[in-house]
Amino acid sequence: MADTPLFERLTLLGLGLIGSSVARAVKRHGLAGEIVGHARSEATRARSMELGFVDRVEPDPAEAVRGADLVMICTPLGTYASLAQAMLPGLREGAIVSDVGSVKSCVLRDLQPILPPTVHLVPGHPIAGTEHSGPDAGFAELFEGRFCILTPPDGTDAAAVDRLVALWQAIGSTVEVMSAEHHDRVLAVTSHLPHLIAYTIVGTATDLEEHLKSEVIRFSASGFRDFTRIAASDPVMWRDIFLNNKEAVLEVIQRFNEDLTALQRAIRWGEGDKLEQLFTRTRAIRRGVIDARQA
Amino acid sequence: MADTPLFERLTLLGLGLIGSSVARAVKRHGLAGEIVGHARSEATRARSMELGFVDRVEPDPAEAVRGADLVMICTPLGTYASLAQAMLPGLREGAIVSDVGSVKSCVLRDLQPILPPTVHLVPGHPIAGTEHSGPDAGFAELFEGRFCILTPPDGTDAAAVDRLVALWQAIGSTVEVMSAEHHDRVLAVTSHLPHLIAYTIVGTATDLEEHLKSEVIRFSASGFRDFTRIAASDPVMWRDIFLNNKEAVLEVIQRFNEDLTALQRAIRWGEGDKLEQLFTRTRAIRRGVIDARQA
Repeated sequence: MADTPLFERLTLLGLGLIGSSVARAVKRHGLAGEIVGHARSEATRARSMELGFVDRVEPDPAEAVRGADLVMICTPLGTYASLAQAMLPGLREGAIVSDVGSVKSCVLRDLQPILPPTVHLVPGHPIAGTEHSGPDAGFAELFEGRFCILTPPDGTDAAAVDRLVALWQAIGSTVEVMSAEHHDRVLAVTSHLPHLIAYTIVGTATDLEEHLKSEVIRFSASGFRDFTRIAASDPVMWRDIFLNNKEAVLEVIQRFNEDLTALQRAIRWGEGDKLEQLFTRTRAIRRGVIDARQA
Repeated sequence: MADTPLFERLTLLGLGLIGSSVARAVKRHGLAGEIVGHARSEATRARSMELGFVDRVEPDPAEAVRGADLVMICTPLGTYASLAQAMLPGLREGAIVSDVGSVKSCVLRDLQPILPPTVHLVPGHPIAGTEHSGPDAGFAELFEGRFCILTPPDGTDAAAVDRLVALWQAIGSTVEVMSAEHHDRVLAVTSHLPHLIAYTIVGTATDLEEHLKSEVIRFSASGFRDFTRIAASDPVMWRDIFLNNKEAVLEVIQRFNEDLTALQRAIRWGEGDKLEQLFTRTRAIRRGVIDARQA
């Protein structure tokens, strides 16, 4: 624990899986003098105090951010613009405003026009999570050994970026800095498409006749259950991701569709060699994932 | 351990993940007087003896099955017909012939015309596995708490089915009996479609430009890595599954495609309500999987 914490006061707007995990990790490592939490729901605020990962909760966003040198938005992407408006009166000069959203271009689009030039906007995205939601789901170790991507716009104060990098590193993450656009293209492939596909396939099963559906659940260990886990993630959060990374997601769906059609055709025409060839090629990617210690 | 084992001699044709796991489990529970193994490759036979889960290996299928009261085929589906021809001279009258393949109609199609009426054909499919292959990948606990589906054709000797049920139960599985056709329809949804989709999505990533691909691997923890695990399964086994369950698989691909197109359209037109509604519905299936203790 440092003698002088990295931040005087950290305010977390949103106290779900990610927000409450950041709070727990920051508290464990003594990185903030005070942790203030805001959540729209009274129940979440009360539960967060009970769980003890915040020092104080505030129902009003402006009160919550007052005096904070770091404000981190941990709510669904669709709330950012109105939340920024609401916190504006309380924002301290020189504060760093960051977030943990899964799309990054839209953060610049939504926040840059609202925030005063005296605050430092440094959007972020920790590549970590589980299928569970809410303040009870968080834990301090969530970010250990995981990547956190920061996407500061051109001209951002380097000292502000450095302080945020130090925070993420202190709670166990490896930080990468890249452009928001690049982030959104990469994540469309690694995260948004897989989630969309998982939601689709579980939806397809949901529409089966009742007796078939119950058997699909019984025999889910054959591959399906991994998809149900992914498709159990927070619906509002994922709605906002797809609405806010539309272009990149539509482009990868298109590529995916072409590839699926090719496989479908190979099955229809009994082209075993083509199937085997593809199924062999994909093993190399798995080895890459294991070698990168992300398995 | 029973005083008289359930089977005098069990012959396993194929000593990969499943075959070697059956051997290990049967040995642990003392369910067979002798376990004989056959594999086409000399290296696999030698390794199996070294690992000690078989009592004896035979390079010739007919010699391997000689005297066995249970023969279990644990090779890719495409090998069944030629393997049946090859073992025919050694098959004992009254023997049970079973398998562990992931498609069941094709087993009847390929084996019934070859096997003599004096043997009992009882196809089976344990709903268990990992993404690893080969004799080293197996372990005795693989089938514990998992389902095993048997699909004996109409008129199969009930005593033969009962003995096979007893074997799977003794190594920890819950046995379900159903028709081969029904099995293939259910598994097309729970297993074959998920694997096809995982292979497709990992293939789509494989075709990305090199710098993007390396980042997809780095940031795979955001959803993609679960697909890479599934897409690392044995290529020849999966080729044969798709070639042999063509109709059912093509039908679920069609349903899946319609559902994906609907989601794609909702994203393009910014229909947030539709997205949220679907993402909420799919959570119910996850709860079903958890309640069925298959998570």
